[in-house]
Amino acid sequence: MTTPAASNHGDGAADQDDGSSPLASSSLPPLPMSSFVRPMLTDMYQITMVFAYWKQKRHEDRAVFELFFRKTPFHGEFGIMAGVDEVLKYLAHFRFTEEELTYLRKQIPHAEEEFFVWLGQLDCSAVKVYALPDGTTCFGKEPLIRVEGPLAIGQLLETTLLNLINYPSLIATNAARHRLAVGPDKVLFEFGLRRAQGPDGAMSAAKYSYLGGFDGTSNVLAGHLLGITISGTHAHAYVQSYVSLDNLQTPFLNGQNLVEKALTYRSALGFSESNLGEFAAFVAYAQSWPENFLCLVDTYDTLNSGVPNFLSVALALHDLGYAPRGIRLDSGDLAYLSKRIRAWFTEVASTLARPTFEKLRIVASNDINEDVLYALSKQGHSIDAFGVGTHLVTCQAQPALGCVYKLVEIDGQPRIKLSNEVEKVTLPSRKNLYRFFNEAGVALVDFMTKDGEA
Amino acid sequence: MTTPAASNHGDGAADQDDGSSPLASSSLPPLPMSSFVRPMLTDMYQITMVFAYWKQKRHEDRAVFELFFRKTPFHGEFGIMAGVDEVLKYLAHFRFTEEELTYLRKQIPHAEEEFFVWLGQLDCSAVKVYALPDGTTCFGKEPLIRVEGPLAIGQLLETTLLNLINYPSLIATNAARHRLAVGPDKVLFEFGLRRAQGPDGAMSAAKYSYLGGFDGTSNVLAGHLLGITISGTHAHAYVQSYVSLDNLQTPFLNGQNLVEKALTYRSALGFSESNLGEFAAFVAYAQSWPENFLCLVDTYDTLNSGVPNFLSVALALHDLGYAPRGIRLDSGDLAYLSKRIRAWFTEVASTLARPTFEKLRIVASNDINEDVLYALSKQGHSIDAFGVGTHLVTCQAQPALGCVYKLVEIDGQPRIKLSNEVEKVTLPSRKNLYRFFNEAGVALVDFMTKDGEA
Repeated sequence: MTTPAASNHGDGAADQDDGSSPLASSSLPPLPMSSFVRPMLTDMYQITMVFAYWKQKRHEDRAVFELFFRKTPFHGEFGIMAGVDEVLKYLAHFRFTEEELTYLRKQIPHAEEEFFVWLGQLDCSAVKVYALPDGTTCFGKEPLIRVEGPLAIGQLLETTLLNLINYPSLIATNAARHRLAVGPDKVLFEFGLRRAQGPDGAMSAAKYSYLGGFDGTSNVLAGHLLGITISGTHAHAYVQSYVSLDNLQTPFLNGQNLVEKALTYRSALGFSESNLGEFAAFVAYAQSWPENFLCLVDTYDTLNSGVPNFLSVALALHDLGYAPRGIRLDSGDLAYLSKRIRAWFTEVASTLARPTFEKLRIVASNDINEDVLYALSKQGHSIDAFGVGTHLVTCQAQPALGCVYKLVEIDGQPRIKLSNEVEKVTLPSRKNLYRFFNEAGVALVDFMTKDGEA
Repeated sequence: MTTPAASNHGDGAADQDDGSSPLASSSLPPLPMSSFVRPMLTDMYQITMVFAYWKQKRHEDRAVFELFFRKTPFHGEFGIMAGVDEVLKYLAHFRFTEEELTYLRKQIPHAEEEFFVWLGQLDCSAVKVYALPDGTTCFGKEPLIRVEGPLAIGQLLETTLLNLINYPSLIATNAARHRLAVGPDKVLFEFGLRRAQGPDGAMSAAKYSYLGGFDGTSNVLAGHLLGITISGTHAHAYVQSYVSLDNLQTPFLNGQNLVEKALTYRSALGFSESNLGEFAAFVAYAQSWPENFLCLVDTYDTLNSGVPNFLSVALALHDLGYAPRGIRLDSGDLAYLSKRIRAWFTEVASTLARPTFEKLRIVASNDINEDVLYALSKQGHSIDAFGVGTHLVTCQAQPALGCVYKLVEIDGQPRIKLSNEVEKVTLPSRKNLYRFFNEAGVALVDFMTKDGEA
């Protein structure tokens, strides 16, 4: 934190000579991703306290707050900072609307009208924010964000800043840990939309797991609004919707009889027990996505139906000049199945002279988490890509990051929070954080000083 | 599910004689709470599958999907249905925008333009939705929502419906379990805004914990937008911001010297070791919120400073004709502290003839969860109200509900999903769910039949 990551205008901005508000300029950042990110997205006690400060004419006292966590998440050695981008948008657009003030008047009926007039003109032009940039490694008790400015506005920011940093940093850290578990070469996709905490939990999960080292997401809206790579094939329901070959509109692809070719492979390879509804579903999928033929193989029976049907259609599709992509497993013993299937692919590649079949992609997506990834590595497996859902987005191993936001200085005097619980005692004073690197650019140690200390 | 909770227009709505779309009428429900709730908030594989259905001309096939969970959450005996309100808003406004279609065209460059034209006119007018009403008790494997309509649109709804039901039902169930743990008389407040999965996770938590039996929230925006009762007092930072009596603007309240009176009580009761900054903070709070004087007492030392300071100021405030409210504990042994403090309040009530002091409210808010509530009941305590944050909103005991959405029938034929994992096998066919009540109105048993069965 040697340079301010985000200096949100100087102290005197509210009194500028030209009378224009710097916040009204066209250099404003975009609105926050969620329409809920407003000054009202706060705990009532922030308003309660600010009214007390205002009554006591202390609202302009110079205060310094620091945002930090005490312990690194997941019993780990590090955290990944995330969410600062949204914090800056929130600060830039901080302003209560008249309708919001009307609501607050009803909540504090004994307050003087002057209080609401003051609240209505409040913005963050007098606030300085220092923050670690998004994506930075961070550690316990280090100031991740330092907020300097008038006491009242600094206090009003607390809850929203915590909301905007806690989950993003938690999921970015979780994603980075998943990345460490599989190494740089495996592909990692975020598949948690259906299990996240609502629509925005899902959007945050897609965004910040990408920051933490994932390759993409299944979330189409995240692809559209945030430009993240999206990916997807088909679900069990798709396979179930095909009962038999009668469901196929046509046996042809590019004028050639794909069904006939695939059925020939099916009997030649001794796969005649495979489910014909699933077979039809795979044929239809190949007809629609010949360049991107990747099938979910566990709807009925992975080894006795799914993989045989996939191979039958994939071989036929290959004869038509296309390169099949691979399969997805969503149940069963992933280590065992992936090795069995890889051996099968290798055998087909060799006996049927289809060398590319050895490298068919195997995707796994059943209840993956960090522990499962380490266990799979230990057992050995042949999986190329993982879709990680529930455990990633809910951070099941630790579903909340405990960032806190504490007053460390007021009117130049250091403040401390004592507590009967020793771990809740805060480090007083405004602090600077330095990270030392060696000549090779590798971070060696973080060093924290009192501001102004030599 | 004997009556449709939400029949979203009949089957033939798309072919209405008068040519007007029923969805364009003024009876449309409001927009979903989150602006992210759009057709694009889905997994890419839904689009992939729908393209395949469209290619095969199967997109209009009659399909029935059911949404259900397999196991009740938290190893418990029941779930609470929630989120249907937002589902209905989503369905009513389901329509891709031109900009979204442009994005999708780039994702599926080989698709025919007719596909995007068809996608652009798609809405839910041909979909029938049956659902358990929000707030209903529900159980594993029961159809919570049944969706009937064309295959493609039914498929497109999957991910969004799961996102809109999973977390709301989980938090409503969690809230109901907290309510059961404390009984009907204790007050329960949701305090999880800072630890939720982003802004919308927090809004959903406030909304659906209220549905599940909480009394209110700390979240001001939830109060404003949803009309939920909000509550809040002050934080540690507020107490820390007062260093000494010099920080007070005035010693007076309503022309009487509150400081002098409170200092007199402080020394008369032998509290002269209490922290004077905290004392000043409480005086200032009493001056700002004389009708709502409830103090956080654990900033420095609960029994040696916080409670003595609270009592000194509360007695002085009482002399001025106000009724102090109580204290909040945010650390320490809550059972022990609450009983000690209650005994103290009772003693003051009796020795100083202030009968109302016996009933001063004790609020607790430190890492409360369901287990803590049961443990507290067992140990005995004197807490009147609980603020529940992290464990409530993240549902730490089980951070995700595993609702799934499965195809159960197509063109009148039952469909089943088999699996190597027996618990993942689905119950085929469209089902009806009946709940039998006795004459006293008590629910006795749920009864599921195949649709059409006598």
